[in-house]
Amino acid sequence: MPTVHAYAAPSATEPLAPTTIERRDPGPHDVVIDIKFAGICHSDIHTARGEWGETLFPVVPGHEIAGIVTAVGSEVTKHAVGDRVGVGCMVDSCRECENCRKGEEQYCLKGNIGTYNAIGRDGQPTQGGYSQSVVVTEDFVCRIPEGIELDVAAPLLCAGITLYSPLKHWGAGPGKRVAIVGLGGLGHMGVKIAHALGAEVTVLSQSLKKQEDALRLGADRYFATSDPDTFEQLANSFDLIINTVSANIDLDAYLGLLAVDGTLVEVGAPENPMSVKAFSLIPNRRSLAGSMIGGIAQTQEMLDFCAEHGLGAEIEVIAADRINEAYERVVASDVRYRFVIDTATIGA
Amino acid sequence: MPTVHAYAAPSATEPLAPTTIERRDPGPHDVVIDIKFAGICHSDIHTARGEWGETLFPVVPGHEIAGIVTAVGSEVTKHAVGDRVGVGCMVDSCRECENCRKGEEQYCLKGNIGTYNAIGRDGQPTQGGYSQSVVVTEDFVCRIPEGIELDVAAPLLCAGITLYSPLKHWGAGPGKRVAIVGLGGLGHMGVKIAHALGAEVTVLSQSLKKQEDALRLGADRYFATSDPDTFEQLANSFDLIINTVSANIDLDAYLGLLAVDGTLVEVGAPENPMSVKAFSLIPNRRSLAGSMIGGIAQTQEMLDFCAEHGLGAEIEVIAADRINEAYERVVASDVRYRFVIDTATIGA
Repeated sequence: MPTVHAYAAPSATEPLAPTTIERRDPGPHDVVIDIKFAGICHSDIHTARGEWGETLFPVVPGHEIAGIVTAVGSEVTKHAVGDRVGVGCMVDSCRECENCRKGEEQYCLKGNIGTYNAIGRDGQPTQGGYSQSVVVTEDFVCRIPEGIELDVAAPLLCAGITLYSPLKHWGAGPGKRVAIVGLGGLGHMGVKIAHALGAEVTVLSQSLKKQEDALRLGADRYFATSDPDTFEQLANSFDLIINTVSANIDLDAYLGLLAVDGTLVEVGAPENPMSVKAFSLIPNRRSLAGSMIGGIAQTQEMLDFCAEHGLGAEIEVIAADRINEAYERVVASDVRYRFVIDTATIGA
Repeated sequence: MPTVHAYAAPSATEPLAPTTIERRDPGPHDVVIDIKFAGICHSDIHTARGEWGETLFPVVPGHEIAGIVTAVGSEVTKHAVGDRVGVGCMVDSCRECENCRKGEEQYCLKGNIGTYNAIGRDGQPTQGGYSQSVVVTEDFVCRIPEGIELDVAAPLLCAGITLYSPLKHWGAGPGKRVAIVGLGGLGHMGVKIAHALGAEVTVLSQSLKKQEDALRLGADRYFATSDPDTFEQLANSFDLIINTVSANIDLDAYLGLLAVDGTLVEVGAPENPMSVKAFSLIPNRRSLAGSMIGGIAQTQEMLDFCAEHGLGAEIEVIAADRINEAYERVVASDVRYRFVIDTATIGA
């Protein structure tokens, strides 16, 4: 079993530090990936800090992985040595349940196997992308098409698909009025993708600070939610609102912005229960929904779509020894819009 | 202006009592209806008791109206003297907004005009069906097809359409797994209609008391929600759940019963805000939605559907002097499944 360099959180209260981990020898269906870049997602921080229940420490976070195939198992047909590939939030699922059979592996009824902080089929804890390489079964590896650089592609594997999936599912496209709540790592991909899908895109952000950015990324309109007029002016006017903010917001106010048959989709997950009035949903037959990444086939579709439209994340590339500093800045919303670790600096 | 006998609540704290009200002289587009039967809906009670905000007292409740046309205005084309007709929860709307133009008058952006406790176009308070007659603009009057008796048809105008509309909207039909939460005035119509639409129908009710009724009405299965096993056994198994219970329930538990892309629709409206965890919605991409009656065209479609399938409400017909007693029994859930006032007993 090859030993590779990585960055891990030893416990919920310690910073991430260099370490080594073992990767399994590739089985017949496995792909060995030389990781080039790994995005930093807020989920990494929640997990590293034990904020989402029990974490299996030490944990190597990272589920926005872009790299190059360096070896394949004897039965692998989907990928070849030298291919540019990506791995997102899951590395396997039961493949047998109703949802897996529909290609919705993210909703595997037995629970998909997370890229880190999960137990793999081999019985060992999975470890993520803040490392030099990873071994993943071929069905959970996606192609990264030519035309997207690997660094801006990495965040697509979580932030990209998390927005692409609900935008597609709820029909974002020409004639559809879409609002993106929050302009961070998730939100900025939402703006780019919704715009590329042809929807009319409005950004709802706390202040006007990011207005210029939003318009540059493809938004048609931008409103500050700190201004109560916003909620009057935009009442009953959206077909789809995607909320990327993981703090609790005044959902009743946002639901009031939905037109008839409109849906507000939660992709950020507030820690505390949400409060919703029935009379915020009943007028206009509104829906409040949730969505989690996307299936593997749809993740591939998203990567192909982004390549075709020249979409990547807006990133700040960092060396691995700045991960802890980057975590602080993510928590303070001080990044436009995604940190990406240059994994060549791990173990260097 | 003709004076007619009616039953009204003089204030939020007094019982309903006989009175007289004036009905307007029919305008060119008006239909005069001799009311034969009026259903008692829980909303009547909330309004009569001032439980839903300000009520315009005295108020004549009743928005499940079935009767016979006795006169029509000079321009009326849709109805003729002698026709069997019904009036539901609304008697007009702006007719100009985006929603009215789509035939979703119930979601009129200026607010539809309620059958009672609203201000009509003539500037006068509207008064409902606990009376001898009513005058309504022809576009808000529906035909009651031959083949449904007027007494069992009356409750279709609110309870029937309240269930029919979401069942149709969310695609209840063959192969769809539908659960109805609560077997009361709304729920029992949900069972009948969902069954007639060809869906697999499960009733979720607190105890097993109504099991026999539910199966007779068309349910395929029945589970007691007081049994915690129910929530384990039925996890991830419904495409559509319609909640007719207006008390706050443990929504997270019910959302856990939805399969991928399933929707839980609120048609009863709990007074207090609902609590929902994001992680109840995100797995399986679930939705929590609301729905309110249906548009006029869909109400007609529902009446035609019910006539075709021989569906009416299960009712207990009462004389008007028993309205207050009936209110107590509705609040105590002691009716199977709808009280209907024989309006010949008003002013008798």
